[in-house]
Amino acid sequence: MSSTYQYRRISKEDAAVLFVDHQCGLTALVQDYPPSEFKNSIMALADMAKFFNLPTILTTSFETGPNGPIMPELKEMFPNAPFIARPGQINAWDNEDFVKAVKDTGRKQLIIAGIVTEVCVAFPALSALEAGYEVFVVTDASGTFDQASHEAAWLRMATAGVQLLNWFAVGSELHRDWRNDIQGFGKLLCDHTPIYQSLMTSYAAKG
Amino acid sequence: MSSTYQYRRISKEDAAVLFVDHQCGLTALVQDYPPSEFKNSIMALADMAKFFNLPTILTTSFETGPNGPIMPELKEMFPNAPFIARPGQINAWDNEDFVKAVKDTGRKQLIIAGIVTEVCVAFPALSALEAGYEVFVVTDASGTFDQASHEAAWLRMATAGVQLLNWFAVGSELHRDWRNDIQGFGKLLCDHTPIYQSLMTSYAAKG
Amino acid sequence: MSSTYQYRRISKEDAAVLFVDHQCGLTALVQDYPPSEFKNSIMALADMAKFFNLPTILTTSFETGPNGPIMPELKEMFPNAPFIARPGQINAWDNEDFVKAVKDTGRKQLIIAGIVTEVCVAFPALSALEAGYEVFVVTDASGTFDQASHEAAWLRMATAGVQLLNWFAVGSELHRDWRNDIQGFGKLLCDHTPIYQSLMTSYAAKG
Amino acid sequence: MSSTYQYRRISKEDAAVLFVDHQCGLTALVQDYPPSEFKNSIMALADMAKFFNLPTILTTSFETGPNGPIMPELKEMFPNAPFIARPGQINAWDNEDFVKAVKDTGRKQLIIAGIVTEVCVAFPALSALEAGYEVFVVTDASGTFDQASHEAAWLRMATAGVQLLNWFAVGSELHRDWRNDIQGFGKLLCDHTPIYQSLMTSYAAKG
Amino acid sequence: MSSTYQYRRISKEDAAVLFVDHQCGLTALVQDYPPSEFKNSIMALADMAKFFNLPTILTTSFETGPNGPIMPELKEMFPNAPFIARPGQINAWDNEDFVKAVKDTGRKQLIIAGIVTEVCVAFPALSALEAGYEVFVVTDASGTFDQASHEAAWLRMATAGVQLLNWFAVGSELHRDWRNDIQGFGKLLCDHTPIYQSLMTSYAAKG
Amino acid sequence: MSSTYQYRRISKEDAAVLFVDHQCGLTALVQDYPPSEFKNSIMALADMAKFFNLPTILTTSFETGPNGPIMPELKEMFPNAPFIARPGQINAWDNEDFVKAVKDTGRKQLIIAGIVTEVCVAFPALSALEAGYEVFVVTDASGTFDQASHEAAWLRMATAGVQLLNWFAVGSELHRDWRNDIQGFGKLLCDHTPIYQSLMTSYAAKG
Amino acid sequence: MSSTYQYRRISKEDAAVLFVDHQCGLTALVQDYPPSEFKNSIMALADMAKFFNLPTILTTSFETGPNGPIMPELKEMFPNAPFIARPGQINAWDNEDFVKAVKDTGRKQLIIAGIVTEVCVAFPALSALEAGYEVFVVTDASGTFDQASHEAAWLRMATAGVQLLNWFAVGSELHRDWRNDIQGFGKLLCDHTPIYQSLMTSYAAKG
Amino acid sequence: MSSTYQYRRISKEDAAVLFVDHQCGLTALVQDYPPSEFKNSIMALADMAKFFNLPTILTTSFETGPNGPIMPELKEMFPNAPFIARPGQINAWDNEDFVKAVKDTGRKQLIIAGIVTEVCVAFPALSALEAGYEVFVVTDASGTFDQASHEAAWLRMATAGVQLLNWFAVGSELHRDWRNDIQGFGKLLCDHTPIYQSLMTSYAAKG
Repeated sequence: MSSTYQYRRISKEDAAVLFVDHQCGLTALVQDYPPSEFKNSIMALADMAKFFNLPTILTTSFETGPNGPIMPELKEMFPNAPFIARPGQINAWDNEDFVKAVKDTGRKQLIIAGIVTEVCVAFPALSALEAGYEVFVVTDASGTFDQASHEAAWLRMATAGVQLLNWFAVGSELHRDWRNDIQGFGKLLCDHTPIYQSLMTSYAAKG
Repeated sequence: MSSTYQYRRISKEDAAVLFVDHQCGLTALVQDYPPSEFKNSIMALADMAKFFNLPTILTTSFETGPNGPIMPELKEMFPNAPFIARPGQINAWDNEDFVKAVKDTGRKQLIIAGIVTEVCVAFPALSALEAGYEVFVVTDASGTFDQASHEAAWLRMATAGVQLLNWFAVGSELHRDWRNDIQGFGKLLCDHTPIYQSLMTSYAAKG
Repeated sequence: MSSTYQYRRISKEDAAVLFVDHQCGLTALVQDYPPSEFKNSIMALADMAKFFNLPTILTTSFETGPNGPIMPELKEMFPNAPFIARPGQINAWDNEDFVKAVKDTGRKQLIIAGIVTEVCVAFPALSALEAGYEVFVVTDASGTFDQASHEAAWLRMATAGVQLLNWFAVGSELHRDWRNDIQGFGKLLCDHTPIYQSLMTSYAAKG
Repeated sequence: MSSTYQYRRISKEDAAVLFVDHQCGLTALVQDYPPSEFKNSIMALADMAKFFNLPTILTTSFETGPNGPIMPELKEMFPNAPFIARPGQINAWDNEDFVKAVKDTGRKQLIIAGIVTEVCVAFPALSALEAGYEVFVVTDASGTFDQASHEAAWLRMATAGVQLLNWFAVGSELHRDWRNDIQGFGKLLCDHTPIYQSLMTSYAAKG
Repeated sequence: MSSTYQYRRISKEDAAVLFVDHQCGLTALVQDYPPSEFKNSIMALADMAKFFNLPTILTTSFETGPNGPIMPELKEMFPNAPFIARPGQINAWDNEDFVKAVKDTGRKQLIIAGIVTEVCVAFPALSALEAGYEVFVVTDASGTFDQASHEAAWLRMATAGVQLLNWFAVGSELHRDWRNDIQGFGKLLCDHTPIYQSLMTSYAAKG
Repeated sequence: MSSTYQYRRISKEDAAVLFVDHQCGLTALVQDYPPSEFKNSIMALADMAKFFNLPTILTTSFETGPNGPIMPELKEMFPNAPFIARPGQINAWDNEDFVKAVKDTGRKQLIIAGIVTEVCVAFPALSALEAGYEVFVVTDASGTFDQASHEAAWLRMATAGVQLLNWFAVGSELHRDWRNDIQGFGKLLCDHTPIYQSLMTSYAAKG
Repeated sequence: MSSTYQYRRISKEDAAVLFVDHQCGLTALVQDYPPSEFKNSIMALADMAKFFNLPTILTTSFETGPNGPIMPELKEMFPNAPFIARPGQINAWDNEDFVKAVKDTGRKQLIIAGIVTEVCVAFPALSALEAGYEVFVVTDASGTFDQASHEAAWLRMATAGVQLLNWFAVGSELHRDWRNDIQGFGKLLCDHTPIYQSLMTSYAAKG
Repeated sequence: MSSTYQYRRISKEDAAVLFVDHQCGLTALVQDYPPSEFKNSIMALADMAKFFNLPTILTTSFETGPNGPIMPELKEMFPNAPFIARPGQINAWDNEDFVKAVKDTGRKQLIIAGIVTEVCVAFPALSALEAGYEVFVVTDASGTFDQASHEAAWLRMATAGVQLLNWFAVGSELHRDWRNDIQGFGKLLCDHTPIYQSLMTSYAAKG
């Protein structure tokens, strides 16, 4: 048996997380996921980034305008992360400070989420792919106007070579083995998966 | 002009809240709302009950079995509320302690939510209606197997005289006037409506 | 407090179950529920009827034609039930033998399911209502061409006074109290609710 | 047992059929049913009207304008039916000729379908109801812009007392008994229910 | 034939239009209609109000806060309409100025739209009903969080006696007869119904 | 500019049409398209094959069993087409007579439709692709159990190199230029596209 | 790090826009997007083309027949654009004048939208791809009969190498940097994104 | 004609089946398929594995925790199959015992199903692909949180080279020819396809 396919999976040692334009104004545009589901996915990805201690970069576009400030929870979780308030570039990769921040992480795997999917996510994802990075887009922590819009964007990215995952797969691919930290990882899942939390509570209740 | 219709709206002075069988095992059965949306609605209703200081009653069915314990957040929020662990009655209204607890509130408007809608909610709702109470069912803090199931249950209840509202309408009908507590009510909405929170944050950011 | 509403709930002593035209050919017409879900609901209702020992009546229309024979599982479960193979009447209530069989049960609450909802269910449901019976239609054990068709039929029946329930609500309203037979009722739910079964198995596994 | 409910079912002797504004231009507005399904339902209703020899009335609004001519198939099927080309009245019942044509049928049950549901159907349906007729609206032979529009219109009509049925229920309620004409009714169903036709063909093939 | 049902249809002479809380911030909450569809419906209703010269009242809640200002297009269309900026009342009917403005119109039919459906629309609708008005809620010019929320609110209102219509039915019920102003009404429909506009253009093109 | 992509479009001179297992029993399994839409698409493809005089092959599996006979309309339209009643092979390409019939057409482009998509269509499509044919699958003239099933099958086929089109695209790609036969092609579209037919009728009516 | 992937993004200097068969009759066929959403997307793309001063080509098929004239708004916006009224070719690329018009732009990136997606868009898109152009299809400014039809067409085009974007992504990829014209681009987004407009208005209102 | 595509179809001689984490707790997380449909698909795949006597491997993750025990039916059907209770590895392929068990089968085609799709299925699928296996993922016997999650996972796997099939296609591709065992294969289909069963019963009834 032989195969030319190489499964490049996300690694704690190789990956960085990019939050692109998760701004308060822009969240109002998102309708491909219900609001509480969407917010939960973003915060789950943030918790994953923190739990695995991944280099994380925040970037925004026109915070002082109607796009609004970055979601406060994100800023609070990553107070020391590079925060690139882009002066105008729509594609974050067109901003030199952003690209430099990415390079400075020394990582070659980029986990990207943002609003809206077909612009703020797809543009830097395709640019990073061209620059030789392995690119992973977090489908449920990225949102847009409607399902047709994300379906088109997913096809554009997938056929280019981007790998699509939800936050649950990102966390699982990073963690590899529950034994690395059973309590910590279990708490992460519970905090963002209500039914998993219910199972845990029921389980614990039985004693 | 004349009208025989009487708009019985929920009043802080007349209403009590009944949480029926929001148990960890049963939440796994709910598929008519996405999990994070559903949990958010339950907690929003709980916050409303607390904010308006409404008499609140908790009841469960077979907590020690697979139905599992009550959602811990509910128990923690209402540590002193009557908590009726029913020994077997499916319709909470068949349990004398429950009915007594309801009567002891002295309220004649009952706000009911539970799992599953067509049983744990509809049964006591119809019983209470028969007993002369005004009944308000919280549609999004109640869940069941699928949308067809809640549509049938809603029709059964609505044609009987039950009033259907989501948690947002319950809170708004109770509050009546923002000036009663602008900060408090605004915080409630923000905590459970991500886009409203975004609007608030953007608004505050502008200074 | 006073109320003119009377909650007529299904009672083991007062109810009979009518399976109307659950025939093999007709099942191919049903598209408002996925096939395995639909079959499961029919068999769940049958198990309920048997468990509560309710008088049960089977009826079919043109079994020897393309409508096909009654679902064999139904026939096997109720070998001694009145079986009315109607020679031509579309509305089962137009068949004297059928009405006589209903009367012979001595019951005044009729639980009706069938294929298709807007004809084989709605017609006898409305006829029985007119004849003074309390009528309960089992929404998920009844099927038709598409969702719009059942929505229209549900509105027609609900505004006439028919009560709509799924099989789960039928069983729960009949059982009233788990203590009447915990094992038996639990088994019923498990056999027809895969996730409930999973909860039970997990629970038992913990020991 | 007693009941005040009276099941008024459609009768061949008492019913007339009204096709309201099934015009070629207006069909382009209909998006609550897929186009082939919708056309099939209209033609099925027409076949039913013919099969049961029901008095049938056609009416249109501004055929010479963008609303376009009546669907040619309808005109061809009922060459001798009263055809009321309304000079301007939106509600067909506001047209004296139309009301007269209805009265001239001597029927007191009106089966109404049209485009669009909330206007061309609902308006004359409510007017006829007020005038003392029993009104039956054919849900799938009536179309409009989207599902939300017909859901609102259905609620408006159902709570007023209109009975909602699809064409299949109309035909079945009219026919009453297969033995009245097995071949004829069977052909009607086959011609407009592809899967029923398949069952028939398979059945016949076995010989 | 006799009937107790009375078809109360909207009349140009008897109706007033109430726009309740169509504010820029609140529009971001609406997800039961796609954004361009929703905006189109609001503007269509406004055009109808203007075309029929109906008394129109605008009201808002906390314009200076995150709810944001009234949609500018509405304000511009009705510069002289009573504009009630409520200081805190959630139910517009709790505001004396608003009720007075309604009374001052001398109309007894109220056409209500707003954001969100189950609060800003349903509350004053039920209050007005109680006060003896005939109430018509414009379903598609009113929006809320999701479809389940409006379905519950529609059932609450419909069973209370509110009549549900989309803007197209409102305009058609008001206009009664195309001959009252063919050009004007046709332009209204074209401006807000893209496919109707296409039909008109094609028709005109043929010459 | 250069490109390695070659647009292989369907040609009247190079294409043959394969109808695989459009049998009366199997149509009852199809739920990813509404029944009248599905039947219309099959007949549209058949009309296209006839209109363009394409070599056409019919094949079935177990006609004498519950799969039932081929749809009679297909058989009648192609009385002289090779008709391969396969004695057992599920993949039609495993049947030598079928492959020979394909070869005998001398065509290298195969237009395939059938029931069910992921088996009766996908298997011979992939086999033919391997054998060097250009393969075009007609998505809407092929049906299966549900949408998820066809989505998975479409991805399997598309990534292998199969081209996916609906019947409308098949006909349009074959016809190339309306001038080849305006009346004929127009009639084809009208017969199977109700709204196109309406446009035609309206257009003709204006004279 | 190395990569063979090249992100070919749309450039103001390299791109031309092709509007293919946006004709009044054909718009009536489109049901994969709600009508106001669809029209908005077409006009948004047109505004983008104008804003970025991109060479734009209009083409139609049989304007004098039932397909109807081009949408008047498009013609008015691009009075001097090449306008190719094709005498019969279904694939615009089969028309020499059209191909010449494309070549005359000197651009190698083609942004294509049209009605219907799988024919009027997919055919010239694949032809242009073969001719060496980079092809971008605007998913939401292109429409067809239903979602399944566009999903199949998207897969056919995406696997061939076409890039799929909505109008919002087209505009953003062209603009690159807000600073190129903040006011102009902001106005474009507001004019076609109701919620973005709301955010802008709220923002401006705060002063 | 020539082609580089090779249709690698599943073969009884080359394939093994892997059930990954079909555990009772995890089934509660699955919402992309209705519960009875999902369970039916899992059991159908199991029956297929048994019918074709394919080497089968079971694996679980943390059976003693809230993930719960493996579905009892699976364990009972394959009492002698390798059962790998992984001590912590999330990707089953990271477990040496599991990989060894796979190798020991001597098969090079792996049929994989599990819960949840994007983790428990996608991870070992991609690992196996890299290891040179041909990989077939059973889409409907694998479940996850929602449709968007499986759509993203399907795109990730399909573009990597995984082949996607439902259980019905798996069984059909394995069986190749009905004559290999008509009764056995027919029974399999009937047991898990209610409508196919209905067809069979109707067929047999005719005698």
